[in-house]
Amino acid sequence: MSKEFEKSLPKLVSKIADNYKKNSVLLINDSSNLVNKEQILKVLNQLRRLIFPGFFDEKKLSDNTIEYSIGDLLISIEETLHKQVKSALLYQNHINGSDGNVNFEEQADKICSSFLESLPTIQEYIMTDVKAAFDGDPAAFDMEQIIFSYPGIFAISIYRLAHELYKLSVPWIPRIMTEYAHNETGIDINAGAQIGKYFFIDHGTGIVIGETCIIGNHVKIYQGVTLGALSPKAGQSLKGVKRHPTIEDNVTIYSGASILGGDTVIGKNTVIGGNAFITKSVPDGTKVSVKNPELKFKNSKPEEFIFDWVI
Amino acid sequence: MSKEFEKSLPKLVSKIADNYKKNSVLLINDSSNLVNKEQILKVLNQLRRLIFPGFFDEKKLSDNTIEYSIGDLLISIEETLHKQVKSALLYQNHINGSDGNVNFEEQADKICSSFLESLPTIQEYIMTDVKAAFDGDPAAFDMEQIIFSYPGIFAISIYRLAHELYKLSVPWIPRIMTEYAHNETGIDINAGAQIGKYFFIDHGTGIVIGETCIIGNHVKIYQGVTLGALSPKAGQSLKGVKRHPTIEDNVTIYSGASILGGDTVIGKNTVIGGNAFITKSVPDGTKVSVKNPELKFKNSKPEEFIFDWVI
Amino acid sequence: MSKEFEKSLPKLVSKIADNYKKNSVLLINDSSNLVNKEQILKVLNQLRRLIFPGFFDEKKLSDNTIEYSIGDLLISIEETLHKQVKSALLYQNHINGSDGNVNFEEQADKICSSFLESLPTIQEYIMTDVKAAFDGDPAAFDMEQIIFSYPGIFAISIYRLAHELYKLSVPWIPRIMTEYAHNETGIDINAGAQIGKYFFIDHGTGIVIGETCIIGNHVKIYQGVTLGALSPKAGQSLKGVKRHPTIEDNVTIYSGASILGGDTVIGKNTVIGGNAFITKSVPDGTKVSVKNPELKFKNSKPEEFIFDWVI
Repeated sequence: MSKEFEKSLPKLVSKIADNYKKNSVLLINDSSNLVNKEQILKVLNQLRRLIFPGFFDEKKLSDNTIEYSIGDLLISIEETLHKQVKSALLYQNHINGSDGNVNFEEQADKICSSFLESLPTIQEYIMTDVKAAFDGDPAAFDMEQIIFSYPGIFAISIYRLAHELYKLSVPWIPRIMTEYAHNETGIDINAGAQIGKYFFIDHGTGIVIGETCIIGNHVKIYQGVTLGALSPKAGQSLKGVKRHPTIEDNVTIYSGASILGGDTVIGKNTVIGGNAFITKSVPDGTKVSVKNPELKFKNSKPEEFIFDWVI
Repeated sequence: MSKEFEKSLPKLVSKIADNYKKNSVLLINDSSNLVNKEQILKVLNQLRRLIFPGFFDEKKLSDNTIEYSIGDLLISIEETLHKQVKSALLYQNHINGSDGNVNFEEQADKICSSFLESLPTIQEYIMTDVKAAFDGDPAAFDMEQIIFSYPGIFAISIYRLAHELYKLSVPWIPRIMTEYAHNETGIDINAGAQIGKYFFIDHGTGIVIGETCIIGNHVKIYQGVTLGALSPKAGQSLKGVKRHPTIEDNVTIYSGASILGGDTVIGKNTVIGGNAFITKSVPDGTKVSVKNPELKFKNSKPEEFIFDWVI
Repeated sequence: MSKEFEKSLPKLVSKIADNYKKNSVLLINDSSNLVNKEQILKVLNQLRRLIFPGFFDEKKLSDNTIEYSIGDLLISIEETLHKQVKSALLYQNHINGSDGNVNFEEQADKICSSFLESLPTIQEYIMTDVKAAFDGDPAAFDMEQIIFSYPGIFAISIYRLAHELYKLSVPWIPRIMTEYAHNETGIDINAGAQIGKYFFIDHGTGIVIGETCIIGNHVKIYQGVTLGALSPKAGQSLKGVKRHPTIEDNVTIYSGASILGGDTVIGKNTVIGGNAFITKSVPDGTKVSVKNPELKFKNSKPEEFIFDWVI
């Protein structure tokens, strides 16, 4: 470090400290006790090992000892999750300036119990998603391949776990979980969305599924699909309003399609073609295809081209 | 953990154990011996250090000692890969219920040898990809920058390695490798695709290249391009059929274009414009551009807008 | 390892060593001293903890001790960054074959000082981005959620840091930083782009912002937007030319839109509709919406459909 910089360091330090004070969200408070992302990812990893035993484990598992491993995992999941849930409740209480008379320990107990009680059902749902991926993808050799490596299953599994915590009104943690899946897969499913059984996402990169979507059973979605909002105006004023579409059972939506609006309902047994842009409801059993933009063909040597598009 | 939850734990454990038994793919079997993702990523990391010496290493390398480092890396790659390949062969045999008389040790020996023998050629191919990226991208200051940080080179390198294992019919490992690249880059290249020299991917997020694609030399592809399938019906019935297009030499495909179908051939020296949607063959030396959707312009203050699109 | 392979190993080693010699970029040189990606990511992580104290830390922070933590972090950031900047300068000098009379130590001192001096301003900019995300997103419960988990804030923060190093002409490091953000988020912002305050990216996957873009204040961009180049021809000949658009203040660009070309200016208070493809300037206060491709509706049972799009 240069002498000059050493001299300027104290001034720099106090400038940054001032920024903390100027921005309440950054204001340090001894009582504050934020959630810890690493710990939340640790819980997700343990949950994944619980749902798919032996797939993401070094440890050999056996029929005879499997119940011990399950019990052991559940206890450790509860312990880690409980700490994070309690931190989230405490910190939310602190920023909301609510009264301190709530028993956060007890509240975290209740939340963790209901979450863990729901795991067998979540696991059954995820198994229907694995089956849907196998039935839907000719490139899938077996279900093991899907569990090992399909981003869709990774994102849907994390969404199903996060959705359970979302329903229990846990702050931050559900979104941290689904954004972790978004980072890993490019599939952005808001923890608030409601999604039925046998949900299949192929490829997945660029998919966006909004907070107030309702999706039925046996729905298939391909890369780049947006289930988004239409709105007279954006922003905080819309919190809580149903802004995203409803997709009924047995609907397939091909790549790049956008379906928008809280009143838009895609009826059951419908197929939406690639790149469709839909802002109104579609009746049951409809096939919607797109009259694609006209193409101009010009036969000439490449070096003669005047390119007129993105490089 | 609350007293109540402690009481309910045994019931919860047996519910999850039942799920394992109900779903054969999850059924634990002492003989089962699945592949380990961490170990496969370790091999990929060692292969990357072998292909680009000094770029992803702490260790200083020197002309005089380089052959020792290469030999050392190769031996360690063989050791780790061999274990994973053998596990994959054993486990596949177990789920297929095939007879146990195959010598998996020997089969893994053969597979690892042919894979490692092919590394010099794979490395030469990857160097052509680096040169293509440098020639194609005005934002590239030098080839070092491309090797250090371009997602396209990362994804193509892993695809070229995985494709070799795919040709050797290794189960799971090729897809685990290409999905790792997909996670890291948003570029989804199926290990089964056949891709020539001097392949350039720019930006890359959202690219999908299907299992039965055939791609020539000097091909350039930009973000959001799908080389996908057209089909009378989806699913397992199509396994093995050529479902994805053929792209001949010196073709450039701009962002957001979709080229679909196993009989679709894009002739050499062709340029496909951004957002084109193509389901039929295109002759050599054609420039295909899109008559883009008509735009409506309305001059007014933003607060007056009735927005009618996704937020 | 099989006997056969052991025999073939020396030949394999020398083939790979030959590849290193054939490709100058891979040629090992004792004096060479490349940058180290792990160390650069370590600096990014420390900078993130400096900008958002307590959010990504195990360590409890307190009003009274905060200045010590800041000073401590800054010293450690300077130390790690200085080593990497000096390596980058030395190695660039080595590949450019420039004369060795430059004092790289001093040059690295200057670069690190100006970078660290700029941190308070960068932090203020990032806080405006957090506020813009909160005001713009009805799914945001509070700013904490945005700092914890929004990919847009992650990508913009890293861009703002990398851009400072880009302005100081540091080789490799800025691009390594922005490609790390691209890997994590699918948001590809070139470190050369110039971006004003209150920048909001929602969802973000697939966004590409080119090297010579100029973006004003209060701009909102959604997933899949490309701010790209138009060009008579691609490649190295265009280095330095303004190839990407200018976006003025208070512009909103909805998902999937492409705005292309260095002379294209989107005037202030303009709204660009989803999927718009724009290659010419748009005057202030314009609403641009897309006449979307015509849809064909066909009512029939799914099993009767002849699908004619991507699967």
